Amino acid sequence: MTLSTFELRTLLDGVASGRVDPAHAERRVLDALSTPPFHDLGFARVDHHRAVRQGFPEVVFGLGKTPAQIAAIAAEIASRGSTLLVTRATLEASDAVRAVVPQAVYQADAGVISLRQTDVAAGHGTVLVVAAGTSDLPVAEEAACTADLMGNRVERLYDVGVAGLHRLLADLPRLEAARVIIVVAGMEGALPSVVAGFVSVPVIAVPTSVGYGASFGGIAALLGMLNSCASGVSVVNIDNGFGAAAVASAINHLE
Amino acid sequence: MTLSTFELRTLLDGVASGRVDPAHAERRVLDALSTPPFHDLGFARVDHHRAVRQGFPEVVFGLGKTPAQIAAIAAEIASRGSTLLVTRATLEASDAVRAVVPQAVYQADAGVISLRQTDVAAGHGTVLVVAAGTSDLPVAEEAACTADLMGNRVERLYDVGVAGLHRLLADLPRLEAARVIIVVAGMEGALPSVVAGFVSVPVIAVPTSVGYGASFGGIAALLGMLNSCASGVSVVNIDNGFGAAAVASAINHLE
Amino acid sequence: MTLSTFELRTLLDGVASGRVDPAHAERRVLDALSTPPFHDLGFARVDHHRAVRQGFPEVVFGLGKTPAQIAAIAAEIASRGSTLLVTRATLEASDAVRAVVPQAVYQADAGVISLRQTDVAAGHGTVLVVAAGTSDLPVAEEAACTADLMGNRVERLYDVGVAGLHRLLADLPRLEAARVIIVVAGMEGALPSVVAGFVSVPVIAVPTSVGYGASFGGIAALLGMLNSCASGVSVVNIDNGFGAAAVASAINHLE
Amino acid sequence: MTLSTFELRTLLDGVASGRVDPAHAERRVLDALSTPPFHDLGFARVDHHRAVRQGFPEVVFGLGKTPAQIAAIAAEIASRGSTLLVTRATLEASDAVRAVVPQAVYQADAGVISLRQTDVAAGHGTVLVVAAGTSDLPVAEEAACTADLMGNRVERLYDVGVAGLHRLLADLPRLEAARVIIVVAGMEGALPSVVAGFVSVPVIAVPTSVGYGASFGGIAALLGMLNSCASGVSVVNIDNGFGAAAVASAINHLE
Amino acid sequence: MTLSTFELRTLLDGVASGRVDPAHAERRVLDALSTPPFHDLGFARVDHHRAVRQGFPEVVFGLGKTPAQIAAIAAEIASRGSTLLVTRATLEASDAVRAVVPQAVYQADAGVISLRQTDVAAGHGTVLVVAAGTSDLPVAEEAACTADLMGNRVERLYDVGVAGLHRLLADLPRLEAARVIIVVAGMEGALPSVVAGFVSVPVIAVPTSVGYGASFGGIAALLGMLNSCASGVSVVNIDNGFGAAAVASAINHLE
Amino acid sequence: MTLSTFELRTLLDGVASGRVDPAHAERRVLDALSTPPFHDLGFARVDHHRAVRQGFPEVVFGLGKTPAQIAAIAAEIASRGSTLLVTRATLEASDAVRAVVPQAVYQADAGVISLRQTDVAAGHGTVLVVAAGTSDLPVAEEAACTADLMGNRVERLYDVGVAGLHRLLADLPRLEAARVIIVVAGMEGALPSVVAGFVSVPVIAVPTSVGYGASFGGIAALLGMLNSCASGVSVVNIDNGFGAAAVASAINHLE
Amino acid sequence: MTLSTFELRTLLDGVASGRVDPAHAERRVLDALSTPPFHDLGFARVDHHRAVRQGFPEVVFGLGKTPAQIAAIAAEIASRGSTLLVTRATLEASDAVRAVVPQAVYQADAGVISLRQTDVAAGHGTVLVVAAGTSDLPVAEEAACTADLMGNRVERLYDVGVAGLHRLLADLPRLEAARVIIVVAGMEGALPSVVAGFVSVPVIAVPTSVGYGASFGGIAALLGMLNSCASGVSVVNIDNGFGAAAVASAINHLE
Amino acid sequence: MTLSTFELRTLLDGVASGRVDPAHAERRVLDALSTPPFHDLGFARVDHHRAVRQGFPEVVFGLGKTPAQIAAIAAEIASRGSTLLVTRATLEASDAVRAVVPQAVYQADAGVISLRQTDVAAGHGTVLVVAAGTSDLPVAEEAACTADLMGNRVERLYDVGVAGLHRLLADLPRLEAARVIIVVAGMEGALPSVVAGFVSVPVIAVPTSVGYGASFGGIAALLGMLNSCASGVSVVNIDNGFGAAAVASAINHLE
Repeated sequence: MTLSTFELRTLLDGVASGRVDPAHAERRVLDALSTPPFHDLGFARVDHHRAVRQGFPEVVFGLGKTPAQIAAIAAEIASRGSTLLVTRATLEASDAVRAVVPQAVYQADAGVISLRQTDVAAGHGTVLVVAAGTSDLPVAEEAACTADLMGNRVERLYDVGVAGLHRLLADLPRLEAARVIIVVAGMEGALPSVVAGFVSVPVIAVPTSVGYGASFGGIAALLGMLNSCASGVSVVNIDNGFGAAAVASAINHLE
Repeated sequence: MTLSTFELRTLLDGVASGRVDPAHAERRVLDALSTPPFHDLGFARVDHHRAVRQGFPEVVFGLGKTPAQIAAIAAEIASRGSTLLVTRATLEASDAVRAVVPQAVYQADAGVISLRQTDVAAGHGTVLVVAAGTSDLPVAEEAACTADLMGNRVERLYDVGVAGLHRLLADLPRLEAARVIIVVAGMEGALPSVVAGFVSVPVIAVPTSVGYGASFGGIAALLGMLNSCASGVSVVNIDNGFGAAAVASAINHLE
Repeated sequence: MTLSTFELRTLLDGVASGRVDPAHAERRVLDALSTPPFHDLGFARVDHHRAVRQGFPEVVFGLGKTPAQIAAIAAEIASRGSTLLVTRATLEASDAVRAVVPQAVYQADAGVISLRQTDVAAGHGTVLVVAAGTSDLPVAEEAACTADLMGNRVERLYDVGVAGLHRLLADLPRLEAARVIIVVAGMEGALPSVVAGFVSVPVIAVPTSVGYGASFGGIAALLGMLNSCASGVSVVNIDNGFGAAAVASAINHLE
Repeated sequence: MTLSTFELRTLLDGVASGRVDPAHAERRVLDALSTPPFHDLGFARVDHHRAVRQGFPEVVFGLGKTPAQIAAIAAEIASRGSTLLVTRATLEASDAVRAVVPQAVYQADAGVISLRQTDVAAGHGTVLVVAAGTSDLPVAEEAACTADLMGNRVERLYDVGVAGLHRLLADLPRLEAARVIIVVAGMEGALPSVVAGFVSVPVIAVPTSVGYGASFGGIAALLGMLNSCASGVSVVNIDNGFGAAAVASAINHLE
Repeated sequence: MTLSTFELRTLLDGVASGRVDPAHAERRVLDALSTPPFHDLGFARVDHHRAVRQGFPEVVFGLGKTPAQIAAIAAEIASRGSTLLVTRATLEASDAVRAVVPQAVYQADAGVISLRQTDVAAGHGTVLVVAAGTSDLPVAEEAACTADLMGNRVERLYDVGVAGLHRLLADLPRLEAARVIIVVAGMEGALPSVVAGFVSVPVIAVPTSVGYGASFGGIAALLGMLNSCASGVSVVNIDNGFGAAAVASAINHLE
Repeated sequence: MTLSTFELRTLLDGVASGRVDPAHAERRVLDALSTPPFHDLGFARVDHHRAVRQGFPEVVFGLGKTPAQIAAIAAEIASRGSTLLVTRATLEASDAVRAVVPQAVYQADAGVISLRQTDVAAGHGTVLVVAAGTSDLPVAEEAACTADLMGNRVERLYDVGVAGLHRLLADLPRLEAARVIIVVAGMEGALPSVVAGFVSVPVIAVPTSVGYGASFGGIAALLGMLNSCASGVSVVNIDNGFGAAAVASAINHLE
Repeated sequence: MTLSTFELRTLLDGVASGRVDPAHAERRVLDALSTPPFHDLGFARVDHHRAVRQGFPEVVFGLGKTPAQIAAIAAEIASRGSTLLVTRATLEASDAVRAVVPQAVYQADAGVISLRQTDVAAGHGTVLVVAAGTSDLPVAEEAACTADLMGNRVERLYDVGVAGLHRLLADLPRLEAARVIIVVAGMEGALPSVVAGFVSVPVIAVPTSVGYGASFGGIAALLGMLNSCASGVSVVNIDNGFGAAAVASAINHLE
Repeated sequence: MTLSTFELRTLLDGVASGRVDPAHAERRVLDALSTPPFHDLGFARVDHHRAVRQGFPEVVFGLGKTPAQIAAIAAEIASRGSTLLVTRATLEASDAVRAVVPQAVYQADAGVISLRQTDVAAGHGTVLVVAAGTSDLPVAEEAACTADLMGNRVERLYDVGVAGLHRLLADLPRLEAARVIIVVAGMEGALPSVVAGFVSVPVIAVPTSVGYGASFGGIAALLGMLNSCASGVSVVNIDNGFGAAAVASAINHLE
């Protein structure tokens, strides 16, 4: 894959003209097929081609990894000049990372460790992050921080749940000005339907695990969002602020 | 229970004064304790005291009963001069009932067989039945017909789902004029939250089994309603228009 | 919305008669449409119009909010002379609130912080809170405290589960004297059905998360209550004593 | 297993005394270990020792078997003089069975095909089958027919659901007279808790799949029964009238 | 109820003959109807008639009650000379109880506090408690301790799971000698089916919450047991050793 | 809303100058607030402003509506010159619609009735619809037809499931050329993760209800997609080809 | 992939020596990368390399495909001389296939259409298919037919459920003689645990959807098998006889 | 069972010839049937015949057992010269075991205590353990340690999730060289499908409980694997690395 058609043609022309040794060409082709585009740490394979393939370097999902593992991966990423993003990071993970990447920043409310470098392109419009209630803020902030780091202009509109719609209606112009909207809500998860009823841009719904008993850790909100009667709504996993931001950023970077 | 304190005192006074035979008094007391206030059809015990206890005669739930069973129960109820209500009734059940209770009426869109008699008190205000979409109408009609038969003034407001809120906002005065509101919705079940945000009267939410895949036969709407972030909302079972009307009528008959 | 028809007509008459500057009238109308009826704390929008719309000030749901956030919202509410109610409050939250609202009271068994002020109307009858077992008391107390604060006369009837029905039957007159009944039960959740069989007033069922293995954190009780064979029963979320009280109060405040 | 200690001793004595050939004894012991106590039909192995082990011949569960398969098994059972019981049988299955076992009887309301023979012992007391509603009758009848065929005196008490407790209270003496009680109920499944509160004999609860939406085909009733707050209640599978009768009969046949 | 037919006749005869004052008789009848057969502690109503109705005094379910509440209820029960049983009791609860009921005994492996008094009748046979694995012991011991306290002769057979059937087969005679068998198992819950295949006495299955991932806290075992292909098996709630013992004891006390 | 700031200012200037009667202005303002931007059919409120708000006219969801209801709504939409789209339409619905809108087209494999009119803007790139297997085609076709009708250039890539990845790898250039990709898959729902690993554009995942037993009508695929380890994936409801197309079209119409 | 290292070296040597035109070599390499190893039917891509990769040609899963689609795929497979296997095939599908592949055979009890050709290698031992009950036969036969067609010697042992273990014990030698065992069971799914307790070869468990109420279409059996306390058991999807046979055949073809 | 045919014949010949006392022979036969092939510790029955039946000694599942119980069982196993394996072991359990079995080794990352002895046969090929992400390592290591101890050559291939397929493709030759492959993955669980698409050997899938919200503790991965569209995949319980290794070892030890 990393051997383009153009390079292959040049190589074969060289062989034909005697300028290139056939054994060299053979090695080159086989190499291209076998060189892994990642760095193997034993317990992890850091993917250095992801920025090429997907527009943003590999992101480190902090849950289930030890601080030492996170720090080792972070050091490998930062050392290549890539922007660093660790989600679901604890303070302990942050300490471990900053011991090896001192410029890294920790945003506790979002659970995010990051280091902005120069390799990320700017998005074209605004990503608006809407949250239904105060309890949804950690997830909303994970989304906002991620979207910001991925090169997007980010705005926030918080505590505008459907039980007091006037709070949302007061900010309709901000809804209408966004290029893509992330809506974070727990409980019954109805806010994305209402927001999507007012706009024509894509709405990405994030259920949160906030709520009384039968919210079942976000299932109620998740089902509510999947069953939205409004069009233009798609959904990511419960509490997955990062995922919503990645989708929003992909949309906002489209030409 | 059916022997009041007053009657017991009278009886004992009679015994003391010799006007009443002790054996008679004993029989009377024992009878009161043992006479079943119902009519036993073998497969069913028709409850003739329910109107006394609960303000409305026994209602026949049609599912799982044969047309012949339904007709027998209906005949027993109608013969006492009680108002008749059969829910979840098929056309076959209706035919069987009308063979023995010719004045009974069948409303196919609501699945309801009924015969209005003179034993039901009038409610004090209006019961407003709100439905989110056209597909929710069978359940909404079951609620509306039931509430009507139970002596309530009923109004309907249909197809006002949250994805096009202006349709609901156009009828805010009708929301505000109701004494109790039944809100019927499938899919994400968000409408009760929005309605309850505008009013101070009780809102009874009815999830329906309408929807795409992950609505799971109404579970999504049910969970959405149980997790409503608005206050004043309580919930009945999926598709249970009858149950909502019974609650609404109980509220509407309070002094 | 906050510009009534009457005020609009007065304004336009003023403009017509020259007493009112058209620019002033324009500003007034636009202001009415754009002034948010809430106070924006950044992380929360405190809704000061809720008492107008719904008869009780905004209630603070304590779960998922930091003590500092709760205290800030509580201070904002109390400073307006509104009655304060925080549910699911920990001792830490209470300490934070009382540092800024010293008159606030903490009821640990109910998890409720409150400050009674003069803005709440009285309900018309008694709200009876029935609990099946001793383990259901925290939820029952959340309901009782909330209903009390919302202006209702509250009575309690505890430990009357269906496995020893004589305990309930001994208090039938109290059931019959209530205007609305809240029934709190875990395990199989059968108590609301039994209670509703004796009365004609609305019964609000609250499942609790109490129980052995397959109670599944209250699902068994929730399903039991949704499937109640008695009429007049509606249901709120698991452990949602507050929600039940809000519904009961709405009913009890109806003319 | 089919070689008793007594028979083994006799055999070995015979070998010791020369009356029995050792090779014969060897074959006898090995035979006993290898002879299958069943008849192999290819698709089924009819268990002729079950009556010895468990007090009742093998019962044929009709679901998922073709009429031809059912008829072949039934013929094999009947030909040995064993009592025949087929549950969940359709009319087609009945026709197929009666073509080969003409004396067999089909009870359509219970879905049971049976032929009473002389090999079943009588139980010691009465098995009372209680059903909450008319819709629960098919399951209750499966239980009653099975218990009757298994040698028990059976009584029925139907349509005594918890929403009208006076219907049950009127028959308390029959509850108290039973040796074991089967309680069949759908919806919230609360009846077993109430019944068990009045008696000291074992109560076997059978949830049925009757009900509105969130009864989920009997899950609500099943969970209600498993979480019964009354003691002395155990539960069988949804709609499993046969299983309840088998447990009741085992209890009723205890010395 | 606590006024027998005999006593009523005597009373009325007395009134008729002038030996009894009618006012006295009236009071007596009304008292009988209104005297609660329980002691009201405010947060709990201790049921002193249960031993009469159900053969064993009220049992205290420890989960969700504070040590102080448990101790108060225990003191009330013990003071009447009733046998005391508290299940799901922590060491703290035990300390609180023993401060007021010093003779009470705490069995930590079973989580049971008890005090044996003289009011419990003896069962007729042996209750055998079978457990599949070592991890199931706490539940098995709750069952065994409860059954013992309820007056039954109890035997134990532990660690005989189906993956090594020879361990069970080695003890077949003990299975056959029991009058009722409690089978406790986690994981796939297959042991009750196998046990029930060998015996004709009733088998009570108790699923436990032991297991890897998809055991789902005992749901796998619960479903396995409900779907048992063996007859004579009924099921109680997950980890409900007490409930199984109560059923077993009810069976074992049948004449 | 339908009274712009500009129009309001003009009106007030008119009143001020005497050119406009105050009563007229009042009526105009009140009318603007009360005129519903929809056509009320009684059972449905056809939303004629949706194209303005959301870029596409109201779509008719065919499930749960009668053919007569669908035809009436379709006629109302078509009569305004709006593009018509009915999803989940049966042949009967198609016949009813074409009786009143003869130019409408029915695509049976997609279950879609449509009539293309001139009111829909063109999208900017290609929407690629990828399907894992032949059984997923009905859902994929619903998505493709919807996206096409909404003004998008649509391409299809079918039967490229993850068990034979070479079939997908052979078409990588088509993946890379799309502006937004819809991936339709049943069973384990892994295809969106794999596709998203190759591209940087947004991927919209649609689970289908295709599969063996534990696919649970699409839940397995839904969960698989929600838990995608690839970034850039968002999800719509099971079998919701329409919803995916609406999201894709919203994205593809962004400037 | 289809261009081996050896062939590449030969090609480059040819270019170096002038025997091969560089443009030809380029085309050859690019062709190898781009030629899809499948036949594209539009709605399906028939995978002709699967036999090379996985030892058996592509299998057609009949559910969700029309008879015409199945026939077209079958014809394509058969025409290449590959062995044909269609699972979950109806009689209609069989008729359609046999119209174009007349030698194909339909086994109705297994739902399998097949045509044996000469391209399948023989396995090394016996695959034993064990079924718990008669109702499990369709799934067991799907497994047996598939394993047979995949080149394995197949034996069957049916109706040996755990409630009558002697039926299984009678055939222990056949269990011990197998190289791999497929165990098919519904209800509680306990049979695989028991079988695996007797043997050291791998056991593949197939849950079936047979059973009463709370078997939930095979979930009970699935969970039972996943939680097996015996080692050596792995599980395939509910009713997935084909999948079990594919695993068994892969094992049986290992050197 | 532990009395072979050969030994039985010898015994009977002895009785016939007078060399053996019949009473002795009787005792011998009865003993053989009753001697348990296990050591009874009271709370556990250590199975010393398992190595004979299943090729590996009994394994101790550490969850739910106290350190003291684990140590006692471990000592019993080690004292017989059997290889020791304890899974799900904490550091406390390790300390307890090593106090009595000092040579035992604790691998904390796998949660495994072991002591290799000489009683385990070698497998024939390589067991390859593949893990999708760094967070899956504890489960993968449990599998790898177990397989190693069971006599298999083990290789590891970690962090090769489907979102960056090139990481897996770089190691295809290792996939192709294995005799059996264990694939460990959380989140959507798609890796087994992809791996199985490249190889013909059996693939054993292990879902892990790693993931965001709607992974539901591994259910998403479990369902994904059960619904794999690739053939040759079977599944073990969530996080059950031990179980996967046991299956893999059984396969790898087949001749």
